[in-house]
Amino acid sequence: MPSTIIDSAIFGDIFSAAAMRQVWSDENRTAQYVAIESALAKVQGQLGLIPAEAAAEIVRVCDIRHIDMVKLKAQTERIGYPILGVVSQINALCRDKLGEYCHWGATTQDITDTATVLQIRQALELVEADLAAIAAALARLALEHRLTPMVGRSNLQQAIPITFGYKMAGLLSAVQRHQQRLQQLKARVLVGEFAGAAGTLASLSEGAMETQAGLCAELGLQQPVIAWHTIRDNIAEVGAFLGLLGGTLGKLSMDVKLMMQTEVAEVFEPFHHGRGSSSTMPQKRNPISSCYIHAAISVVRQHAAALMDAMVADHERSTGPWEIEWIVLPEAFCLMAGALKQSLAVLEGLEVDPAAMRRNLDMTHGLVMSEAVMMGLGPYIGREYAHDLVYDLCREALKTQRPLLDLLSEHPEINRHLDRAALARLCEPANYLGQSGVMVDRVLALMPH
Amino acid sequence: MPSTIIDSAIFGDIFSAAAMRQVWSDENRTAQYVAIESALAKVQGQLGLIPAEAAAEIVRVCDIRHIDMVKLKAQTERIGYPILGVVSQINALCRDKLGEYCHWGATTQDITDTATVLQIRQALELVEADLAAIAAALARLALEHRLTPMVGRSNLQQAIPITFGYKMAGLLSAVQRHQQRLQQLKARVLVGEFAGAAGTLASLSEGAMETQAGLCAELGLQQPVIAWHTIRDNIAEVGAFLGLLGGTLGKLSMDVKLMMQTEVAEVFEPFHHGRGSSSTMPQKRNPISSCYIHAAISVVRQHAAALMDAMVADHERSTGPWEIEWIVLPEAFCLMAGALKQSLAVLEGLEVDPAAMRRNLDMTHGLVMSEAVMMGLGPYIGREYAHDLVYDLCREALKTQRPLLDLLSEHPEINRHLDRAALARLCEPANYLGQSGVMVDRVLALMPH
Amino acid sequence: MPSTIIDSAIFGDIFSAAAMRQVWSDENRTAQYVAIESALAKVQGQLGLIPAEAAAEIVRVCDIRHIDMVKLKAQTERIGYPILGVVSQINALCRDKLGEYCHWGATTQDITDTATVLQIRQALELVEADLAAIAAALARLALEHRLTPMVGRSNLQQAIPITFGYKMAGLLSAVQRHQQRLQQLKARVLVGEFAGAAGTLASLSEGAMETQAGLCAELGLQQPVIAWHTIRDNIAEVGAFLGLLGGTLGKLSMDVKLMMQTEVAEVFEPFHHGRGSSSTMPQKRNPISSCYIHAAISVVRQHAAALMDAMVADHERSTGPWEIEWIVLPEAFCLMAGALKQSLAVLEGLEVDPAAMRRNLDMTHGLVMSEAVMMGLGPYIGREYAHDLVYDLCREALKTQRPLLDLLSEHPEINRHLDRAALARLCEPANYLGQSGVMVDRVLALMPH
Amino acid sequence: MPSTIIDSAIFGDIFSAAAMRQVWSDENRTAQYVAIESALAKVQGQLGLIPAEAAAEIVRVCDIRHIDMVKLKAQTERIGYPILGVVSQINALCRDKLGEYCHWGATTQDITDTATVLQIRQALELVEADLAAIAAALARLALEHRLTPMVGRSNLQQAIPITFGYKMAGLLSAVQRHQQRLQQLKARVLVGEFAGAAGTLASLSEGAMETQAGLCAELGLQQPVIAWHTIRDNIAEVGAFLGLLGGTLGKLSMDVKLMMQTEVAEVFEPFHHGRGSSSTMPQKRNPISSCYIHAAISVVRQHAAALMDAMVADHERSTGPWEIEWIVLPEAFCLMAGALKQSLAVLEGLEVDPAAMRRNLDMTHGLVMSEAVMMGLGPYIGREYAHDLVYDLCREALKTQRPLLDLLSEHPEINRHLDRAALARLCEPANYLGQSGVMVDRVLALMPH
Repeated sequence: MPSTIIDSAIFGDIFSAAAMRQVWSDENRTAQYVAIESALAKVQGQLGLIPAEAAAEIVRVCDIRHIDMVKLKAQTERIGYPILGVVSQINALCRDKLGEYCHWGATTQDITDTATVLQIRQALELVEADLAAIAAALARLALEHRLTPMVGRSNLQQAIPITFGYKMAGLLSAVQRHQQRLQQLKARVLVGEFAGAAGTLASLSEGAMETQAGLCAELGLQQPVIAWHTIRDNIAEVGAFLGLLGGTLGKLSMDVKLMMQTEVAEVFEPFHHGRGSSSTMPQKRNPISSCYIHAAISVVRQHAAALMDAMVADHERSTGPWEIEWIVLPEAFCLMAGALKQSLAVLEGLEVDPAAMRRNLDMTHGLVMSEAVMMGLGPYIGREYAHDLVYDLCREALKTQRPLLDLLSEHPEINRHLDRAALARLCEPANYLGQSGVMVDRVLALMPH
Repeated sequence: MPSTIIDSAIFGDIFSAAAMRQVWSDENRTAQYVAIESALAKVQGQLGLIPAEAAAEIVRVCDIRHIDMVKLKAQTERIGYPILGVVSQINALCRDKLGEYCHWGATTQDITDTATVLQIRQALELVEADLAAIAAALARLALEHRLTPMVGRSNLQQAIPITFGYKMAGLLSAVQRHQQRLQQLKARVLVGEFAGAAGTLASLSEGAMETQAGLCAELGLQQPVIAWHTIRDNIAEVGAFLGLLGGTLGKLSMDVKLMMQTEVAEVFEPFHHGRGSSSTMPQKRNPISSCYIHAAISVVRQHAAALMDAMVADHERSTGPWEIEWIVLPEAFCLMAGALKQSLAVLEGLEVDPAAMRRNLDMTHGLVMSEAVMMGLGPYIGREYAHDLVYDLCREALKTQRPLLDLLSEHPEINRHLDRAALARLCEPANYLGQSGVMVDRVLALMPH
Repeated sequence: MPSTIIDSAIFGDIFSAAAMRQVWSDENRTAQYVAIESALAKVQGQLGLIPAEAAAEIVRVCDIRHIDMVKLKAQTERIGYPILGVVSQINALCRDKLGEYCHWGATTQDITDTATVLQIRQALELVEADLAAIAAALARLALEHRLTPMVGRSNLQQAIPITFGYKMAGLLSAVQRHQQRLQQLKARVLVGEFAGAAGTLASLSEGAMETQAGLCAELGLQQPVIAWHTIRDNIAEVGAFLGLLGGTLGKLSMDVKLMMQTEVAEVFEPFHHGRGSSSTMPQKRNPISSCYIHAAISVVRQHAAALMDAMVADHERSTGPWEIEWIVLPEAFCLMAGALKQSLAVLEGLEVDPAAMRRNLDMTHGLVMSEAVMMGLGPYIGREYAHDLVYDLCREALKTQRPLLDLLSEHPEINRHLDRAALARLCEPANYLGQSGVMVDRVLALMPH
Repeated sequence: MPSTIIDSAIFGDIFSAAAMRQVWSDENRTAQYVAIESALAKVQGQLGLIPAEAAAEIVRVCDIRHIDMVKLKAQTERIGYPILGVVSQINALCRDKLGEYCHWGATTQDITDTATVLQIRQALELVEADLAAIAAALARLALEHRLTPMVGRSNLQQAIPITFGYKMAGLLSAVQRHQQRLQQLKARVLVGEFAGAAGTLASLSEGAMETQAGLCAELGLQQPVIAWHTIRDNIAEVGAFLGLLGGTLGKLSMDVKLMMQTEVAEVFEPFHHGRGSSSTMPQKRNPISSCYIHAAISVVRQHAAALMDAMVADHERSTGPWEIEWIVLPEAFCLMAGALKQSLAVLEGLEVDPAAMRRNLDMTHGLVMSEAVMMGLGPYIGREYAHDLVYDLCREALKTQRPLLDLLSEHPEINRHLDRAALARLCEPANYLGQSGVMVDRVLALMPH
């Protein structure tokens, strides 16, 4: 009977994604514990630190399917942490007390930290795949609409024309930087932990660093420079990354929501029968995915702060701050998986209406071109005078609701330099797209080939 | 396969509590939907707004056991919200299309908001019960240790004596205020929602306000003054309350953790075999519950901020901010339930060691009594001179590691006024407890009888 | 050379307000210290705990104008806290060492906490005045536009008509609840602190509780039940209140921003020459105040979380958490003062354009009235059939861009029941305002007379 | 009359630092505006986009000393943004209306964003210098105390020995990673903005990209791939970096506070006369800097979340989110400057008491060596039996308060294998430091030479 929206039987696949929930599930977490204990035994057997027979037996029984999860719950509640329960179950599975060599020299947090890193690695792979797909979808939209004119808006006011491709390329550039951040943080985060009770590996009188190096190699992780039981910038960096990524998805969802407004109606989330519609208000085309994205990323940025809080750990093994990570890390990743999924669905199925974009460009009867007209008239009548004159005509156009072009072509100081056709070219939004296409190209040039 | 710590099969009963998870479960939430639709039909039948036969039929079929949750998931994913799915299922359960009168004049959010309020009522009842039990436990400790001397610490330095009862009474006073806050917010929060698509109840051409009044009365809720679909100070206030309550539990856990330190060892979380102990470090007596409390409340305060964020809703039905509540509200309550449970367990089973408290009072050989000695000598040798003299003797005591009492009784300017016995009385912590007992009494006097 | 936006010589009066900055200024804070020391001496003199002559002398010299702030800075940096510096300056001002009786029995935090409470009292008075003015402005708008039709929007889609007065009344209801919260929290927050080094008042061997009671009475504060040096739910509650209030102002600013969009253009922030306009884009009418409000309250909700964090204090005098309050409390109040000022300016000068509201109601050619038409046709052709028929006609209207009224009046199954005039009445937004006016009245009825 | 703690005349140099406040001061921010306008004119003059004479004249007058700040305040309050005011002042300073060519093709936000980046560059240089100094101080402590034994603590319980150098090296490793993060983010953050009203540079019909490239080169910044007016992952990343850095300083301050406890007394913040001491409690040695650090970083992590919030910008120029940065960025840097300064002061002046560390190692009469003894006895009597036997003896030692060594050497099953001298070696903490020294060396090896 789940109570969180993430695990909800109703909402879980809306606000999260099955593959990501699987990463953070009891089963997968415990499976990592078992895999690490197995790898540890294997490495210590190879190093001759424990009997080869024990290593082989431990490796043999280390299988998540052998772990009794009901029993593990009881053990965890009694002890406070699940690792000893897992170790004792492995122990009991081994013949001839060979399981005594399981967890040799390790401390509880060595196993949980390393398991968390392995889960983070799995989770980041999912994020990475989603990011690649989102980048591809953005690149496709940027290319397809490289020169599709639409209104650029500043302070929610129509300003000057842009292209829809330019808008998408801006988001794409952020996604590219997130991909770069992700690669850079991996070197700091995908690091194992094997350090014993206070991080010094005193529990192994010999072969300590060799075991650490071997275990990390076996698991495909970096060896730590020093124990990080209470040095948690790595985990908090993952949270910060998710928070930053969320900000970009939030900006995407914000723009989609605003462009879907009845009064704007330029793009629409992909349509599915019944989705986002109202039974009594057929004119509605509700954003749905955008709402989920907005909500998820708004929570994840708070999680990012909570993970920074968790860094304020005491001494060699922290008393409370560590457990913040237990709560927050799975949720942040699970919500982000939902936000990524919804973002991808929006982008891959986005309905773009260039005609509506054009209508909105035209709705102010040319006022959105005032800057262009000022610039264009400058060479003929002087920049400053052009500014003042156009400004005045714009205010008149606003007041009289007449097209700016009419007023321009009627004005004697203007029409002696430029005829109506020339003025019409000045008033044409498609002629005032600036470097939109160039900037799209610059961003697309950074895509992998 | 739950992925959150709250719903985890392993950790769920550590970080949360079954009764609270039940409140926020898919089943209970959906059951509230059904109950509200039933109440609505009943009220509208009584008002003659829908046929009595339809009302009776709707009431008859409105039973959570009839709802197909698998189907509801599919409906929710298609539509984006679960209410229409529930209504269509109710509809299908009714004979002769009488179910057409179900959800009469309501909008989706009317049902979800009212359901949320009903869940909040259930959740607050659990919180209220826990608060009462925690208050009782604190009161018991405050009374029992009303005059048990211990070191009062300022900036983590031993300062002057207090009593353990005084320490508990301080926490109790905060709990009493939280109880007051809880009562006060109920009037603002336990309010129904029934307002139609944009809050104006235009969907009911007659009987609109009567239906609203009747539905709220039927559900035991206050009638709203005006629709609150996007006026969410009520929900955010609940989050703020939980965040404030968490702060107090965090202070409790902080003090317990600090008092459990090996070097302090004044109180201990209740002992259960294996809990909080180490297999290789038998000297350890780890705080466990305190860690869970610390972590949970650290996340809940970020949830409080997220719920304030959710207040920034757009127009008459918000586009994303609302869904923040869906994520955060269940989690904040579920984590708080865990923190309350753990706090109660700590307080009810707390092992208090007055002898250790006394040892710590004595560990500075009397320096912790310097203020008292200054005060006591003042009448004899002048306050200012007493201050300087005692200050010097304290520094000498620190340097020589000799008891302050020895130095005092050896000093000619002092021992001519007070003999060693009198000085010993001045140096006795139990004689310098100030108003500890009085303050305990003042707090206890506010307990219900 | 200020560096914060609050104290900025350029931005300070935009993002904050002079009166509120004054409350949290070095001068005013220090003035409170001096006033408290004066009150303490006066009370202790009356109680006979210190010589009447000393009390009189201390009261005489206790004047903020006598405090050397440059010296105080050096003292504070040396000691870590400013109180001892103030006391030593007072001391030096007194004749005949009578200043030795200053600060009698008090601890540093007694003075700073009580000063903070006095500052909070001043600050809350400013907030209270702003809230009253905002409530009045909202009430005026609600009344004036009680029946001014506009589009109600759900998920940023045009839904059904509401009135602008109804929209304002919803905000007003939240402001009314904030006023209630403010009154309720005063009883918990406007409480003095006088408790000595560890809260027990051991420093006063006699007259301890009498001094505490007298000092609080002298300052117009409640006497605490018990010391609250490290029990900070009161301070955090103030932060939570500001965060909640911010949420409401954020909702106001969100709606204003959205209504000011070029494509919507229903209301405008008050116009001042040059403000919110662009030199090259004369069509722009930028929201300005709304941006400041949005930004300020987004920061204040994080401050609210920080103040909850500050509750996790250690032992009898906290080691770091307390100082969080020093940073956050002034900023939260100063930013909120800016947000309140800007909100009031928006509301008092708001330009409301009922004609534009009407235009937007009409822009979908009647689709916004689909729910109303369904309801209206139900009695004639059956509710379910009416729904399906109207839904189909709406989709046709969307496709063909023809007015819904035309399609309705052309349809044989409809026009045999209702002629075009009757259908036009059904399609008239002003006829489908539901309980908008009633709800406005319900909210206005709660205003003080 | 500053009201924030950062700008406070009393507290400003405690909670912040003058050099950092200078970076974010009105003067310096405005100076950047002026410098950018000057660079823009210079570049556009070189490109022949504006007359060389105009460029020269603009460069000539562009000097912050010519800007009237009082006038600028009035202009800013009227317009809502300061840039136009600055431009108009520059304009007025130029002869012959040559100032008309100032700000050519630029938009307000181009200048403010670029100025912010220049301020960030200055601020990061200060952070970088502090980080280098902190790293050096940590390295010195790690090296000096590479083998200074102290208790390692887990869950605030004494666990097993570590060295103080190991503890410092753990922090150092985090600082090294922060230095790496700082280098990596510079490439993403130190990027200019020059893009015109909606980011497309349409305002420059020719030389647009050349101006952008030239301006960025002139200022020593990267050229942006695309406009980032509303793509703010760069700014938010700076906030996240500060939040992460804060977490590490918070961990440092937490450990210092805990080690300074009266009952622990292993290290002390540097002593200055009067600082951290009490006038009536001479035994106190209060942490002061650690409190400031704790408070500052607790606020900065909330700022990090606020900056992620600011990423949710609308369209091409955001309506509110941007202004969040104006509030938060200066504060986050100013508070962090204070935290860095205090951290450096703590580390450079830290008093380390190896004798006290040793006393604490010995306070459990050998129990802290239980793990070591179990390991050491294993080869003689079997690992499992050794565990059980030592565990029992430890519990007896706890109960009887006798040294573990005595009990070990009295036990017949033990003393037949190892004599008291051998057992004493097993019980010697200095013999159970594990890889402490090796790990210190690994971290120090990463320091620049």
